Amino acid sequence: MRPRDDSKRVGLLEATLVEVTEHGFQVASVARIARRAKVSPATVYIHFTDKTALLEATFVHVCDRLIDTALEAFDDEVDLRAGLKAIWRALFGLALEQPRLFRFHDAFSHSVWMTDALRERNDRRLSPLLDVVDQGQRSGVLKPAGRALVHCFLFLPIYQLVHGQQCHPFDPSDANIELAFAMAWDAIAAGPETATQGCR
Amino acid sequence: MRPRDDSKRVGLLEATLVEVTEHGFQVASVARIARRAKVSPATVYIHFTDKTALLEATFVHVCDRLIDTALEAFDDEVDLRAGLKAIWRALFGLALEQPRLFRFHDAFSHSVWMTDALRERNDRRLSPLLDVVDQGQRSGVLKPAGRALVHCFLFLPIYQLVHGQQCHPFDPSDANIELAFAMAWDAIAAGPETATQGCR
Repeated sequence: MRPRDDSKRVGLLEATLVEVTEHGFQVASVARIARRAKVSPATVYIHFTDKTALLEATFVHVCDRLIDTALEAFDDEVDLRAGLKAIWRALFGLALEQPRLFRFHDAFSHSVWMTDALRERNDRRLSPLLDVVDQGQRSGVLKPAGRALVHCFLFLPIYQLVHGQQCHPFDPSDANIELAFAMAWDAIAAGPETATQGCR
Repeated sequence: MRPRDDSKRVGLLEATLVEVTEHGFQVASVARIARRAKVSPATVYIHFTDKTALLEATFVHVCDRLIDTALEAFDDEVDLRAGLKAIWRALFGLALEQPRLFRFHDAFSHSVWMTDALRERNDRRLSPLLDVVDQGQRSGVLKPAGRALVHCFLFLPIYQLVHGQQCHPFDPSDANIELAFAMAWDAIAAGPETATQGCR
């Protein structure tokens, strides 16, 4: 079992996650987060110097959930498509189960609180995966696309399809998730691009 | 020249666009929007019954900017890939020039104010384009993907690449925009999927 102290800290991170995804960064206040976590505002400042530190710690907490899920699903024994598919399906499952993680990640990474240090920290943790993608690009299996493009076509759709249901309903049936991954793969794979030249 | 009345209305829509994209729906207030548009709060209620009506009118105003840009770039004389590419590049140019339009569209369509009536209204305006995509799917040129998937892989990347710069820097060079469209096309095109089966 966790030491009491650590469980309070995690409780505050979870409360911040809910508070921010329900009310946004603007409205989210340390007092409301403390109330949600059932601790006194003073207790918050025992664990975090200020609201910024609390938000940043919540982002790291959220990123670790996503990164651990990806790395656990990762298998470099299979071919690249199968390897990425396993990660993709694991993350899609997590997005369906806990959409808040993805909503917070999206909101924070576009906020003023996002820093290069946090980006580099996540890239370091994701390096086994990023290396495989780089290698796939060097070997010509994948298009020579930068991180922004790979992220945009491979991973963002997971969040968009789950989050975007209000905008365009997406039925997360097995067949549809299968098709969604095939679309993500075709976007980043090198083969298709040449295959479709002059496609009518 | 616009009649004075209409110019005030458009001024209020533009002020709402800026207010919401800068402060979010929660913080945006009719008083602040009126101040930004340099009119009295009373004037707002001459044009709009309440905040909801003002936000909805701003969404319609924003959607028409996006839809008009897409329809003007649309040419059904060329093949499907070239036709979609022209639309895609026109929208990408608009996103670079006026990212607020896309940010507001994204925020509103995930908000409680989004309604089926607004969705259907936009789909009606977009029908020439949606028909071409449906026809491409029936003829087997495109994957048999629902609206959510086509939207997610074809159009959302435009917003994500421009908006997501804080998260992953995307250099909107001609070559990169070219590559981004190739990725979007390969995602929705039928050819590639089969071409990459068993790809290592």
